[in-house]
Amino acid sequence: MSDITPLDSVGEFGLIRRIQDTITLRQASTKLGIGDDAAILAPPAGHEIVVSTDMLVEGVHFDLTFCPLKHLGYKAVAVNVSDVAAMNATPTQIVVAVSIGARFSVEAVQELYDGMRLACEAYDVDIVGGDTTASRGGLTISITAIGHVAAGKAVRRSGASPNDLICVTGDLGGAYLGLQVLEREKQAWQADPETQPELGKYPYVLQRQLRPEARMDVIHELRDLGVEPTSMIDISDGLASEVLHLCQASGTGARIFSENLPIANPTLEVAEEFNLDPIMCMLNGGEDYELLFTVPLAAHALLKNHPDITIIGHMVERSEGTNLITKSGQPVPLRAQGFNHF
Amino acid sequence: MSDITPLDSVGEFGLIRRIQDTITLRQASTKLGIGDDAAILAPPAGHEIVVSTDMLVEGVHFDLTFCPLKHLGYKAVAVNVSDVAAMNATPTQIVVAVSIGARFSVEAVQELYDGMRLACEAYDVDIVGGDTTASRGGLTISITAIGHVAAGKAVRRSGASPNDLICVTGDLGGAYLGLQVLEREKQAWQADPETQPELGKYPYVLQRQLRPEARMDVIHELRDLGVEPTSMIDISDGLASEVLHLCQASGTGARIFSENLPIANPTLEVAEEFNLDPIMCMLNGGEDYELLFTVPLAAHALLKNHPDITIIGHMVERSEGTNLITKSGQPVPLRAQGFNHF
Repeated sequence: MSDITPLDSVGEFGLIRRIQDTITLRQASTKLGIGDDAAILAPPAGHEIVVSTDMLVEGVHFDLTFCPLKHLGYKAVAVNVSDVAAMNATPTQIVVAVSIGARFSVEAVQELYDGMRLACEAYDVDIVGGDTTASRGGLTISITAIGHVAAGKAVRRSGASPNDLICVTGDLGGAYLGLQVLEREKQAWQADPETQPELGKYPYVLQRQLRPEARMDVIHELRDLGVEPTSMIDISDGLASEVLHLCQASGTGARIFSENLPIANPTLEVAEEFNLDPIMCMLNGGEDYELLFTVPLAAHALLKNHPDITIIGHMVERSEGTNLITKSGQPVPLRAQGFNHF
Repeated sequence: MSDITPLDSVGEFGLIRRIQDTITLRQASTKLGIGDDAAILAPPAGHEIVVSTDMLVEGVHFDLTFCPLKHLGYKAVAVNVSDVAAMNATPTQIVVAVSIGARFSVEAVQELYDGMRLACEAYDVDIVGGDTTASRGGLTISITAIGHVAAGKAVRRSGASPNDLICVTGDLGGAYLGLQVLEREKQAWQADPETQPELGKYPYVLQRQLRPEARMDVIHELRDLGVEPTSMIDISDGLASEVLHLCQASGTGARIFSENLPIANPTLEVAEEFNLDPIMCMLNGGEDYELLFTVPLAAHALLKNHPDITIIGHMVERSEGTNLITKSGQPVPLRAQGFNHF
């Protein structure tokens, strides 16, 4: 039987102390962590700092019916680390602000922080600041990630040129199909609470949705290969939307070949089961947190057989537009689907 | 007649674009602001970075019945700048995450950002990152402030020694009494919506509550005087709580003289009207965002006549405890009241 301690029995200070006690620091650049008015960081000389912030709101970005708090904590950190990775920087510290309703227990909050701590271990990041506060409603998690990169080596969205190759890491569409599975099972369960949710059949897409990873591994591999991306972004809203962001910032057009888009077999199977077009899932699904980046044509030989990287197209002149080239060779203009949560 | 544009008519991207268009950058250290996966900062060589985060939640930290959104935006930035000031650092950038319910209009969100922008102008800070998202409930504002300070010159809570003078900036208790006025008027208005709230009589305490300022001015003055605080904290939870924080972190006790505590005349008058003990308002009121700091005894001559600084006591050995010394010379142990929002 698990313990349930109401939040009001320990208070804000008590809760913060419990969380603080479990935090370890591993970054040499962290001079002072949680416990003062601010943290003190000493980034290495000759480096620039990158900073990114993301807020996850219950009922908008996650649904606690099917998202375990530990996974949520992990994901909240991973999506911020992903933004730092997308700048070609190394994440080093995060600060975390959480607001939680009184319906949560101390143990639930600790579970959330356990997930964050796991992610911090995985990405070698320190939690150096926090604000934990009550809310009148649900759970909101706001994380700011800090990283560093050698001066001048940050990769922006704006550096691509026509003829640059467009590459994507991993595979696409899985997170979206994982969400479809979760929503179907939730509806079934709401209609009949006796129903046992059928989640065991879908480990891959559920993992993609519930516990995505930031592709820091690829950032390190590109450095090892000596390949410097000319532009980069992480895929949070869907491939189509992100390609358009790179093109708009770089003043280019793009040709993406539908045949080249990477999809995993389990994702494809779920798409078929749900009668969804796998290309659409890859283009507009979102939340895969893979990296989309461009490299000079000269990097082709180095990347063409890379197991974690797929060349999906190339940049063109702005005037040629931003198109998906179908199997039959037809250009179809890419459109951002994006989310409108309001 | 003011315009009312529903949030869902512009969407998240549209809203973000509108906000982004009004942001100007003024810090040399900001290499890249909003619009990429992360901002890029280049702090001056030989400096350390400080980072602090704060979350303000509707219904917990503010009440939109009586808090104009512009003031709220200003305050949200000021309280973060105050944390940076309390480290003896100079604030340079902030990132802002906001979640808002559909009941807000585009104009309301712009008003909030107008207030933040005003504060950024006042404190010479750049908004370099943001996340604006929907919420299922009220308004939540999460700000992370970044500053820099010459390496080794950050002031922690832990550096005080016995005999150090304890100083406070400005005056205390005003923000708390401002809140009392607002809550009384809200109750009167709820009981009878025809009532005209009597706020014009209380400009000082209302300003202290609704639009506090971070004391960066004092940080600059101390540098000009060549006075280096040995420990410092900003007063968010109340003087008593903050004195205890400094003592705990520094391993000291303290003697605070009730006769020396600074209160403004308008604050005193409101305390009398509400039949509240002014000493208690100063000790436990909170939200004044003044600075509490210690200096070596040798700084006495430099600070004793300073118009913005009051010497309220001195540090003692830990074994002597942490006491308020009353007018009649009686020691009364200080106790933190703090808030428990759960």
